[in-house]
Amino acid sequence: MEVVQVLHMNKGAGETSYAKNSKVQSKIISITKTVIEEAIIELLCKNLPESMGIADLGCSSGPNTLTVISEIIDVIYSKCSNLGCPIPELRICLNDLYSNDFNDVFGSLPAFYNKLKEEKGRDFGQCFITGVPGSFYGRLFPRKSMHFVHSSSSLHWLSQVPPGLDSKASTAINKGRIYVSKTSPQSVLDSYMLQFQKDFSLFLKSRSAEIVPGGCMVLSFTGRKSMDPTAIESCHQWELLAQALMNMVSEGLIPEEKVDTFNAPYYGPCAEEIELEVQKEGSFIMDRLEAFEIDWDGGVDMPNTINGTLSSGQRVAKTIRAVIESMLESHFGRDIMDDLFQRHVELVDEHLAKTRTKYTNLVIHLVRKG
Amino acid sequence: MEVVQVLHMNKGAGETSYAKNSKVQSKIISITKTVIEEAIIELLCKNLPESMGIADLGCSSGPNTLTVISEIIDVIYSKCSNLGCPIPELRICLNDLYSNDFNDVFGSLPAFYNKLKEEKGRDFGQCFITGVPGSFYGRLFPRKSMHFVHSSSSLHWLSQVPPGLDSKASTAINKGRIYVSKTSPQSVLDSYMLQFQKDFSLFLKSRSAEIVPGGCMVLSFTGRKSMDPTAIESCHQWELLAQALMNMVSEGLIPEEKVDTFNAPYYGPCAEEIELEVQKEGSFIMDRLEAFEIDWDGGVDMPNTINGTLSSGQRVAKTIRAVIESMLESHFGRDIMDDLFQRHVELVDEHLAKTRTKYTNLVIHLVRKG
Repeated sequence: MEVVQVLHMNKGAGETSYAKNSKVQSKIISITKTVIEEAIIELLCKNLPESMGIADLGCSSGPNTLTVISEIIDVIYSKCSNLGCPIPELRICLNDLYSNDFNDVFGSLPAFYNKLKEEKGRDFGQCFITGVPGSFYGRLFPRKSMHFVHSSSSLHWLSQVPPGLDSKASTAINKGRIYVSKTSPQSVLDSYMLQFQKDFSLFLKSRSAEIVPGGCMVLSFTGRKSMDPTAIESCHQWELLAQALMNMVSEGLIPEEKVDTFNAPYYGPCAEEIELEVQKEGSFIMDRLEAFEIDWDGGVDMPNTINGTLSSGQRVAKTIRAVIESMLESHFGRDIMDDLFQRHVELVDEHLAKTRTKYTNLVIHLVRKG
Repeated sequence: MEVVQVLHMNKGAGETSYAKNSKVQSKIISITKTVIEEAIIELLCKNLPESMGIADLGCSSGPNTLTVISEIIDVIYSKCSNLGCPIPELRICLNDLYSNDFNDVFGSLPAFYNKLKEEKGRDFGQCFITGVPGSFYGRLFPRKSMHFVHSSSSLHWLSQVPPGLDSKASTAINKGRIYVSKTSPQSVLDSYMLQFQKDFSLFLKSRSAEIVPGGCMVLSFTGRKSMDPTAIESCHQWELLAQALMNMVSEGLIPEEKVDTFNAPYYGPCAEEIELEVQKEGSFIMDRLEAFEIDWDGGVDMPNTINGTLSSGQRVAKTIRAVIESMLESHFGRDIMDDLFQRHVELVDEHLAKTRTKYTNLVIHLVRKG
């Protein structure tokens, strides 16, 4: 399966980097923290392995990458201390696409290891952190090597735009729309749903081979409460970007066909779709599924030391830019990015003045059958 | 133990990059190929594992990184095909310091995997390539997880300049010398020898925990035939660089004390020193130790498409620059690098016109006791 190689978070630590603009994802991580904790404690109570395989899929780069790992280690450490058991050898695998900024992640490891030694002391045991590049829609790890797999804010990205939609000759999603919407033909909706089913099913099958019996996954991603894939909660963030692009078309800055041939490899599923795929694949028991809403701006202050206080729209737009700029850049070219995102900021500001739109996030806990 | 974080090969694919200037290392890899092949065949004949751990320590970035891995896979594939056995699941770990350009290595993996599929077909089985950042003078991998460990052109780098030599207050190696030489005081020679013993012993102890009984290592590195650590074969490459630095001191471009406080964390051991440490550590049997000489310029043409044919000195100097520039830059600053290496080229050219100096390379095969 072809992987969307162009999808990577903005690298480095500059103003538009993912590292500086990932507060929404960070907020999601803090909400799912309880689910992660309970899952790991349940796992350790069943069976304390000598060597424990842990993976974070779609780890990205920046402050969030090691925050999740740090939380996981904390839970294991305190649970083992309570039980009076030795800490297992930890094999921690950080996964993301080949184009992820692993240099940035690896560069922060020496400080991370030092902090670990200081906080946990010498009896902490061994902790090996490795980088595993590749698509999680396929095998990543050796057979039965993983005990706990985590993924946050990644599984709403499809492995590719559904085939047949991404060439000039084919029907684009629909005029000036870069996502599935109310006006998309049924065939387009079907293609997206099918792609999600294929991808999520392959994801489950791959993890099924890699996770030991009794091992588990905690996955969180953007989805929807409604059964309707064109519900506003699922895709309004794309609508404003499409509007910004169409404004540039109307001013002759981008050819219209360029917009028609851009389709986002994005699908926010609902609980029922997830449940169906888990049942069909058959290796996992769904122990928990929760939906929660999160403000577009993460509902938190995002101080910006250079420009002072930012508007809510600016903050939302910066968050979105950090995630999807690489994808847009490879289709539309680098030159229009600043202009495009300036227009996007204005549209988001206007929109938020009228409506406080929220993302719907799903978090699930899956246990590998014995 | 403090790691020399500043030691990394020049990144990227530019004119001074390691990727474009690593022909000597590539020549060494081709010479040690036979040793690698025989070691792997011996390993597979003893016991064919279902899942095989393979590591390349000091993998660097650029064309050499995946060449070694590709050769190892070829040997395993053809041996298993001959024996009519299934190919084991391959867990391949690429190790280098935290500052290595892993993004470059990971970026070339999709093409590598595709080539593997094309050449070896669908029955090849699973191959998982991961990045393991950290110093090999310490633990890197889980207990008993490795079957074959390789390292080329890396173990002559010490974990640090011996303590007590690297501060201004202490005795530098000796006036205008950045390496152990005929004029070094005995205390300096002793410090270097001791640092090598500590490092190599820790290396063996770490690998001993990680390698399964019957597993093995093939290690090649720059060393010497003479028992004398100040022999010209071991350190004349540093002498010319020291001369270039001292020329700049005499012109007032670098303060002399800057040169006095720079000491190379380098030690080229002889066979006897290696044998002693292997015996002392006790977990490995030395199955093979070979020394071979290699021309400073790798004895091969290194075509340069931009500047046309290069002099032998230019080629040698470029090879050395790609390896040690990062270390010099962090001590002397970036600004003087071009000037320094221009002087270095001239000195190497002059030297090679008089003498065809060679490196001595050692290659050893160590088997983990059962």
